[in-house]
Amino acid sequence: MPLANINDSEVDIVIGALQSDLTSFMNEWRTIFSRFHLIIVKDPDLKEELKIPEGFNFDVYSKSHIDRVVGSSSSIVFSGYSCRYFGFLVSRKKYIVSFDDDCIPAKDSKGFLIDPVAQHLANLTTPATPFFFNTLYDPYREGADFVRGYPFSLRNGVTCALSCGLWLNLADLDAPTQALKPQQRNSLYVDAVITVPSRAMMPVSGINIAFDRESVGPALLPALKLAGEGKFRWETMEDIWSGMCLKVVCDHLGLGVKSGLPYVWRQDRGSAIESLKKEWEGVKLMEEIVPFFQSMRLPQTVATTEDCVIEMARTVKQQLGPSSPVFTRAADAMVEWVKLWKAVGSGSSPL
Amino acid sequence: MPLANINDSEVDIVIGALQSDLTSFMNEWRTIFSRFHLIIVKDPDLKEELKIPEGFNFDVYSKSHIDRVVGSSSSIVFSGYSCRYFGFLVSRKKYIVSFDDDCIPAKDSKGFLIDPVAQHLANLTTPATPFFFNTLYDPYREGADFVRGYPFSLRNGVTCALSCGLWLNLADLDAPTQALKPQQRNSLYVDAVITVPSRAMMPVSGINIAFDRESVGPALLPALKLAGEGKFRWETMEDIWSGMCLKVVCDHLGLGVKSGLPYVWRQDRGSAIESLKKEWEGVKLMEEIVPFFQSMRLPQTVATTEDCVIEMARTVKQQLGPSSPVFTRAADAMVEWVKLWKAVGSGSSPL
Repeated sequence: MPLANINDSEVDIVIGALQSDLTSFMNEWRTIFSRFHLIIVKDPDLKEELKIPEGFNFDVYSKSHIDRVVGSSSSIVFSGYSCRYFGFLVSRKKYIVSFDDDCIPAKDSKGFLIDPVAQHLANLTTPATPFFFNTLYDPYREGADFVRGYPFSLRNGVTCALSCGLWLNLADLDAPTQALKPQQRNSLYVDAVITVPSRAMMPVSGINIAFDRESVGPALLPALKLAGEGKFRWETMEDIWSGMCLKVVCDHLGLGVKSGLPYVWRQDRGSAIESLKKEWEGVKLMEEIVPFFQSMRLPQTVATTEDCVIEMARTVKQQLGPSSPVFTRAADAMVEWVKLWKAVGSGSSPL
Repeated sequence: MPLANINDSEVDIVIGALQSDLTSFMNEWRTIFSRFHLIIVKDPDLKEELKIPEGFNFDVYSKSHIDRVVGSSSSIVFSGYSCRYFGFLVSRKKYIVSFDDDCIPAKDSKGFLIDPVAQHLANLTTPATPFFFNTLYDPYREGADFVRGYPFSLRNGVTCALSCGLWLNLADLDAPTQALKPQQRNSLYVDAVITVPSRAMMPVSGINIAFDRESVGPALLPALKLAGEGKFRWETMEDIWSGMCLKVVCDHLGLGVKSGLPYVWRQDRGSAIESLKKEWEGVKLMEEIVPFFQSMRLPQTVATTEDCVIEMARTVKQQLGPSSPVFTRAADAMVEWVKLWKAVGSGSSPL
């Protein structure tokens, strides 16, 4: 892994707290997290006080902060996994790294504990190569390079805006798959980072990600809220929707998205079978969402992430809106999010 | 690795012999090759008799066979690495697996010798997923699946037409890179198979590949011959060109291309520095070739691999031809190849 040339002070680690006792979670991450500033956003539905162990540099945001900034009339709902987006909003740092609170650092194939934050930052600070596929994976990794036939004019790559990490143990499956294969666990450690090619769409999971907040922050947004959304990942789609928006923005602006290392270890919780009926809504929606984003092309005149989101929201409302109110609400939330981003980012909103 | 449901008699292993003594090469592959029928094509420039150890089921083709089938007036040159394409032409099998004669089976990350033929056949007989990227790699692998957000309507995948394997030890770099980093060897075993997304272009290396001859055979063609092409891989571009043609065909016909496992171990030979001046022609050509193939779209009416190649040849001649005679010759060779394929495939040519 190349050493990332990033000062720790340029990074916020954002944690959405869906459980009140973060003691064991934070302790598992202690050696890594203690170097960075943390933003912990408490799920507004969570009633208990947060328990956070000592020795960390953090700020906690809860329902009262959210209400003060966004007001109660907002079309954005920050409950559940969506609470973390409030952390993206109030951060002032260039880079964000974010993990679900049921994940701990994984071990590599040799049994050594890995540092997911360092790997994410390395992914973000080395170029991405979305315009031609390098068969030997990340060409910037030590010992690797571009293979024969790779055009020299493309070897400088482009800025990487998003790093999507993966999961060992409990994989990020949907509820039907998890219910069908309750014993299945992911034990395959694939030692690679890949740039997802331009115009190829992917399901971005929010479990273990990092991004360049300054360049694409406004495209990480809590817009798609399922009617029966609960507190388990397989019941949610907000990150998948947000990831499709983000990939379209990156392709349009010539930025890169990487997938692969680092892995986190996901601990088991919840019953997939209980969630089954809720998840089907999301599963059905994907049949419309994927071709929609796959074919989306933004006008050349749209040149900022904010404007990309506004333009996408317009198209969502127009093309998907008639099929389900969930899409109309998503479009409204996207517009609202950009307004919020501009207001909070410019410092005019009180925190 | 899933067990491929293929009868050994449906497979030809094609070897282009660029060296006369195949004894040690064949012995390294003995346990694997001895189950299959082999087609060995002798580089027509090679004067010495081939030395092939006993215990294999093979046919050898040499210059006299080539001349008899294609005639001496052909615009196709079968010398050097291009000789293997003659084997693709005369095969009557559904699947072809082909390795360079300086490669032997690699060991996996645990030190176990792998079976590259079995892995290639598994890749070809399980579906590919070119229309949406699965972040946990090959969803058909045991223990793997589609991740949350993957549309169910795309989970059947499509037929995989090409499996591109990789290389340990000497990687498939171009001469400038190899000359710049003479000590660099690839030691990273990435335990994954990836479907290269639709419309993403890649440099297909011919070192270690397998394909469905019945569906895409006519698109694996020896068309781009560099003026100073020699007998080392870094001096050649025929496979890269052929791979771009093949990827365009697969994207057009809705077929898949996989990259990753299996690895072969490439032994060192040749001096990259000696080859440097020859390779620059290929390096320069890639700057035109990649955007050309990237933007190529075939008419909907073109429905067979043969017709795709003819249509591509027309566009090559028209758009690339004016920039260099190497492209005009490539276009002519493509047209000639399809004629040959039809003639030999229909059994009208004597072998």
